[in-house]
Amino acid sequence: MANIDINCDMGEAFGNYPMPNDETLFEYISSANIACGFHAGDPKVMQDTVTLAIQNNVAIGAHPGLPDLQGFGRREIKISPKEAYQITIYQIGALSGFVKAAHAKLNHVKPHGALYNMAARDVKLAQAIVDAIHDFDPSLILYGLAGSEMINAASKIGLKSASEVFADRTYEDDGFLTPRSQSNALITNEKESLAQVLKMVNQQQVMSVNQKVISLKADTLCIHGDGEHAVEFAKTIYQSLKNEGITIKAPTN
Amino acid sequence: MANIDINCDMGEAFGNYPMPNDETLFEYISSANIACGFHAGDPKVMQDTVTLAIQNNVAIGAHPGLPDLQGFGRREIKISPKEAYQITIYQIGALSGFVKAAHAKLNHVKPHGALYNMAARDVKLAQAIVDAIHDFDPSLILYGLAGSEMINAASKIGLKSASEVFADRTYEDDGFLTPRSQSNALITNEKESLAQVLKMVNQQQVMSVNQKVISLKADTLCIHGDGEHAVEFAKTIYQSLKNEGITIKAPTN
Amino acid sequence: MANIDINCDMGEAFGNYPMPNDETLFEYISSANIACGFHAGDPKVMQDTVTLAIQNNVAIGAHPGLPDLQGFGRREIKISPKEAYQITIYQIGALSGFVKAAHAKLNHVKPHGALYNMAARDVKLAQAIVDAIHDFDPSLILYGLAGSEMINAASKIGLKSASEVFADRTYEDDGFLTPRSQSNALITNEKESLAQVLKMVNQQQVMSVNQKVISLKADTLCIHGDGEHAVEFAKTIYQSLKNEGITIKAPTN
Amino acid sequence: MANIDINCDMGEAFGNYPMPNDETLFEYISSANIACGFHAGDPKVMQDTVTLAIQNNVAIGAHPGLPDLQGFGRREIKISPKEAYQITIYQIGALSGFVKAAHAKLNHVKPHGALYNMAARDVKLAQAIVDAIHDFDPSLILYGLAGSEMINAASKIGLKSASEVFADRTYEDDGFLTPRSQSNALITNEKESLAQVLKMVNQQQVMSVNQKVISLKADTLCIHGDGEHAVEFAKTIYQSLKNEGITIKAPTN
Repeated sequence: MANIDINCDMGEAFGNYPMPNDETLFEYISSANIACGFHAGDPKVMQDTVTLAIQNNVAIGAHPGLPDLQGFGRREIKISPKEAYQITIYQIGALSGFVKAAHAKLNHVKPHGALYNMAARDVKLAQAIVDAIHDFDPSLILYGLAGSEMINAASKIGLKSASEVFADRTYEDDGFLTPRSQSNALITNEKESLAQVLKMVNQQQVMSVNQKVISLKADTLCIHGDGEHAVEFAKTIYQSLKNEGITIKAPTN
Repeated sequence: MANIDINCDMGEAFGNYPMPNDETLFEYISSANIACGFHAGDPKVMQDTVTLAIQNNVAIGAHPGLPDLQGFGRREIKISPKEAYQITIYQIGALSGFVKAAHAKLNHVKPHGALYNMAARDVKLAQAIVDAIHDFDPSLILYGLAGSEMINAASKIGLKSASEVFADRTYEDDGFLTPRSQSNALITNEKESLAQVLKMVNQQQVMSVNQKVISLKADTLCIHGDGEHAVEFAKTIYQSLKNEGITIKAPTN
Repeated sequence: MANIDINCDMGEAFGNYPMPNDETLFEYISSANIACGFHAGDPKVMQDTVTLAIQNNVAIGAHPGLPDLQGFGRREIKISPKEAYQITIYQIGALSGFVKAAHAKLNHVKPHGALYNMAARDVKLAQAIVDAIHDFDPSLILYGLAGSEMINAASKIGLKSASEVFADRTYEDDGFLTPRSQSNALITNEKESLAQVLKMVNQQQVMSVNQKVISLKADTLCIHGDGEHAVEFAKTIYQSLKNEGITIKAPTN
Repeated sequence: MANIDINCDMGEAFGNYPMPNDETLFEYISSANIACGFHAGDPKVMQDTVTLAIQNNVAIGAHPGLPDLQGFGRREIKISPKEAYQITIYQIGALSGFVKAAHAKLNHVKPHGALYNMAARDVKLAQAIVDAIHDFDPSLILYGLAGSEMINAASKIGLKSASEVFADRTYEDDGFLTPRSQSNALITNEKESLAQVLKMVNQQQVMSVNQKVISLKADTLCIHGDGEHAVEFAKTIYQSLKNEGITIKAPTN
């Protein structure tokens, strides 16, 4: 039977600004990517989110982003590979502090937003990021866009990776995500989204925005925690996969 | 024969702003307290400073501060003990990332500036900080003001500590440092400073600003890296201690 | 007939983090204190909020805070009077940029959170802040806690002020607000809050937490925009005051 | 006789990090571009620098940058034209606060670093920035790269501009600056630099890196304040221009 991991970006609150869905979402995921204070998150939020992950038996991952709280890590910043290495080490380290203090285990790393997208296409950024992960702890798992340079770079240095697919994002013919700046970037219809998920998990395929069938590896499914219906939709996906007999669990090393 | 550790706050550059003495100072110290990005330091500076510490065989410590780059961590911020715990974990974790990636060992933690001074007097802040250090790694050593609540708090939970004394700061009758806001806070005369150091290391005593002899434990001597004559003075202290037959080395656990 | 201004802290969103009530609240207030990017707010939020204030014909004020986004400006930072002057000028200037660009008029300045509370009791901080306001534009109006050092300081230099009272905060016997750290700091019962408002507006009096009747000047009433029932409550207060025949309008100079 | 303005980026200190040349440099310039807290500068530095400019009778300009203190505003951040407008208004406003409080006059605006370079080539960013300047105060003068989209955009909306040339940067055949990432970006030989300056001021021409003579408008000459020999070199340029009978003064409106 098929397996899939469900991951979600968690701990993206900051200071006085809550992310109210986080607590409930933990019931419907197997991996949490926890923000590390650069694009979102702060020391309090990080500690609280690590605690929630442990209580819900969800795999803990670091979710390093670009240093841009105002832009939520979604604006490209032209950083060098060396800078990418350094901000990745810093943020994994910071999150691992809370994980260590709670006697838990850090399982994976998933870069966030613009850092994720830039490294999906840029070989040197991808190498720098996987080097950082490997140098910090070679038993960590990279979560990266299926078919991306990040997955390639991890493979080259023997770092385990999980190929990520998206429930509510559309795909272009080359297997990359349609940029958020385009109107058809998001799937807002729940049924379409669910159908895409099942196709990806069961057949390792997705239909592009141009109606082309694309092969893609689906190890981990990203769901989003923000938006009005996020919790409801997370629950629907979780239960639909369960009903199909698919095992939901995080990759391990 | 007497032993003493010489520690110095290092890696307090930021972005485009250098701390030009750092490289040379490494020759005259046995412990480096490396800034973690809150009051000073950034991922690049942290990596570079860890590298220098390793090359110079100097013990590596985390130097967590209040989140106040503009105030260089010297302005008191009223944080709760829980917040003190969280910012300490975050910063130790972040620095430990670079230490781990370099296959080196984190030796100690010394809080910075206002955090150091607040926790020297406030039992609850002191407890929170030593708890954070212990939860992260019970083999770490706290560097704290001799006679302070931090040293007491470490002792209570079985965390090893090193009592810190200052070469260029004057002491009040209660053994605390004269606040920097007062005109007699700093010893600017090199000979006086050196005399104070030798008295502290050899006799575990210091003369207060009111000419009272005070007992104090001297495990580690703090020298400062900024100021025009900082490097020269560091060299003088280092060589004077050597000439006296005193062994200069970091505390270990 | 009695007059009262209703003011509310607005534009306290930041980046990806919304303050969803702002738009509706503008219907029930006469003065908006707009965050300036230090404790909350960012250039986009500031422009949008200035635009909303103009559309709703609401008086525009700057709402400068301490440089502490994570603590939402609610944690005391020990700054000097000179630093208070400088951060006040900076923030008023920044907000006035958007006001000028929109050909509108800046009406008042209300310090935020810990800065407001520190300056209410500290003569030197109060002087520094009113000097900043006066130096920037002597026709601006200070909104400050009724009976506070800020009101005194404004009076001394001939800066017009509006004495502020709170709908949902309790008062101590000395006329200061019960600190938020205490359990009885907030009035959560809507009827009690409304009764307090009417007593303050009509009789210039308030009942302290110890049931003592205190005189206080009530030029402007602060309502809060966060919280589940904030909009509803704002509407209730607005309509109750209207029904009592009280004119709701901002002070002018 | 020829005229030229000499401008220099000033007030780029931050918190504990000084820019020690600033005070002396004021003697050799006619325009100061003062950092506004995003890429460098803070409220204290801004006030101090405005004071120095007034004392030295130097024209005061705002020097807005990208929100990237760590990268000193030199890393490109993909911001929208609207965001460029908003951060420009915010920063001009903030600096104008100190100018207003000192009863002085804001003369010009020169974008910094990556923002300057991006807007030199990107029509929409250029338009957004000149709109911000014009909306804030139509009597301000834009300082922008000679021949750039910024100069074009200012011209289109009737905003006065000053075409800027560089003493120590080399030029490409298209009249743009050689990027700093290239080894020949900087002219380190003082004589070559001085020769370039005189050619630009007297003949409105420059020699490209490929030895091509390029025409360029030279209204204002940028010198740099950092670097070991910056002050000395500033003095040399200043005196050489004086000796040639060239009047050194800021453009006015």
